[in-house]
Amino acid sequence: MARMAGIVLIGNEILSGKIVDANASYLCRELRGLGVEVRKIVVIPDEVELIAAEVRAQARSFDLVFTSGGVGPTHDDVTMEGVARALGVSLFRDPHLVQMLEGLHKGRLNEARLKMAEVPEGSVFVAGEDLIFPAVVARNVYILPGVPEIFRRKFEALRERFRDAPFHLCSIFVNMAEGTLADHLNELLTRHPDLMLGSYPEFFNPEYKVKVTLESKDAERVARAADDLLARLPAGVLVRVERTG
Amino acid sequence: MARMAGIVLIGNEILSGKIVDANASYLCRELRGLGVEVRKIVVIPDEVELIAAEVRAQARSFDLVFTSGGVGPTHDDVTMEGVARALGVSLFRDPHLVQMLEGLHKGRLNEARLKMAEVPEGSVFVAGEDLIFPAVVARNVYILPGVPEIFRRKFEALRERFRDAPFHLCSIFVNMAEGTLADHLNELLTRHPDLMLGSYPEFFNPEYKVKVTLESKDAERVARAADDLLARLPAGVLVRVERTG
Repeated sequence: MARMAGIVLIGNEILSGKIVDANASYLCRELRGLGVEVRKIVVIPDEVELIAAEVRAQARSFDLVFTSGGVGPTHDDVTMEGVARALGVSLFRDPHLVQMLEGLHKGRLNEARLKMAEVPEGSVFVAGEDLIFPAVVARNVYILPGVPEIFRRKFEALRERFRDAPFHLCSIFVNMAEGTLADHLNELLTRHPDLMLGSYPEFFNPEYKVKVTLESKDAERVARAADDLLARLPAGVLVRVERTG
Repeated sequence: MARMAGIVLIGNEILSGKIVDANASYLCRELRGLGVEVRKIVVIPDEVELIAAEVRAQARSFDLVFTSGGVGPTHDDVTMEGVARALGVSLFRDPHLVQMLEGLHKGRLNEARLKMAEVPEGSVFVAGEDLIFPAVVARNVYILPGVPEIFRRKFEALRERFRDAPFHLCSIFVNMAEGTLADHLNELLTRHPDLMLGSYPEFFNPEYKVKVTLESKDAERVARAADDLLARLPAGVLVRVERTG
């Protein structure tokens, strides 16, 4: 079994269509490459109770939870409080973080900026070469900022701790209507029930009509199923095969 | 009060990082422009029980629910069944849809393709000029396909039924650290408590440091709050002001 992860994006600006999120798709790609299975992504407003409820549910269901956004100094930055409530702990002003903020802001450290030192009790901090401020981890919840450049730097500082056995993927591109291919796929699944099998039609692509993906953490299982499908496809429909992992 | 909407994206291919979703951001932008408030976006796997639970929760909480994906002819297309379970109704093979499929596939209508005629009982169909197949609406759930081109065509056929009073937005761009600006924003909120106020820092933008957004369905409220904030900002920090809606 792969380790499972959930993602909580906190952001009115995403829901109101002002910006397009880039963090979830980045994280899905990275985590998949590390062998981790993302099971859910949720985008919710900057509201404490909604964040608490969602993070609580995900922290119980999944091995890893990542939040993005809502960690700045303004009124709408309520992620830390939401995560604290989710885990049933207090928010607490950490003296080490206060010291770091004093070094960064040199005499201009007001109450708003001190908010950045408030974290859920029991949090641990992960420093990284490219980080001005450490990543904050509360139990199994990784609290990351919404700004994509900093989100990525913080994830980079954490990434090796998530590495798991890799997924193996074989993509088979065919020129065959999905409605006809469906019969082949259903039969394939009865012979290889533990396979992750996906079917993605293209309606506007001149190269192929359907991409079929066969996936598993067991490389042999993918190879056997791919050979099986390729042997049974009608002549002339295969466009190409891609194998990764 | 704005009408509220939720979005459920069904797609292993998004969670596993194989594709980047384009439908949620499109829908957020369009719905906002129509005066509808999106409260939640969720991405879940192609699994009936997960779809049923999420759609059930959203259909109760929100006025409108949009699903994207999982409506094709293959084994992993289980959205219709998930929505039916969410609403506590049966899946049913609609004779009008069967007739349309017969016209489209002319004698090549197998069981897999007939799946496309199976919809939650009580569904209504919305035709549109650019649609080969109608959009399916089950109670307050709008069931849309994952392929972006067709998703947009179906939404276009539906869009005018969602139109509501517009949002009014004023964006104020400033060259001032968010940690200092925070005090001004907190004061503004005490004087204008019903305002939707957002603060979005930019760390890598040479033009400005923070974009402040003031928003409401009441145009006067936005104008008054914007004048108030502009009058109190320190000299020299204002970059520009944008008003829309």
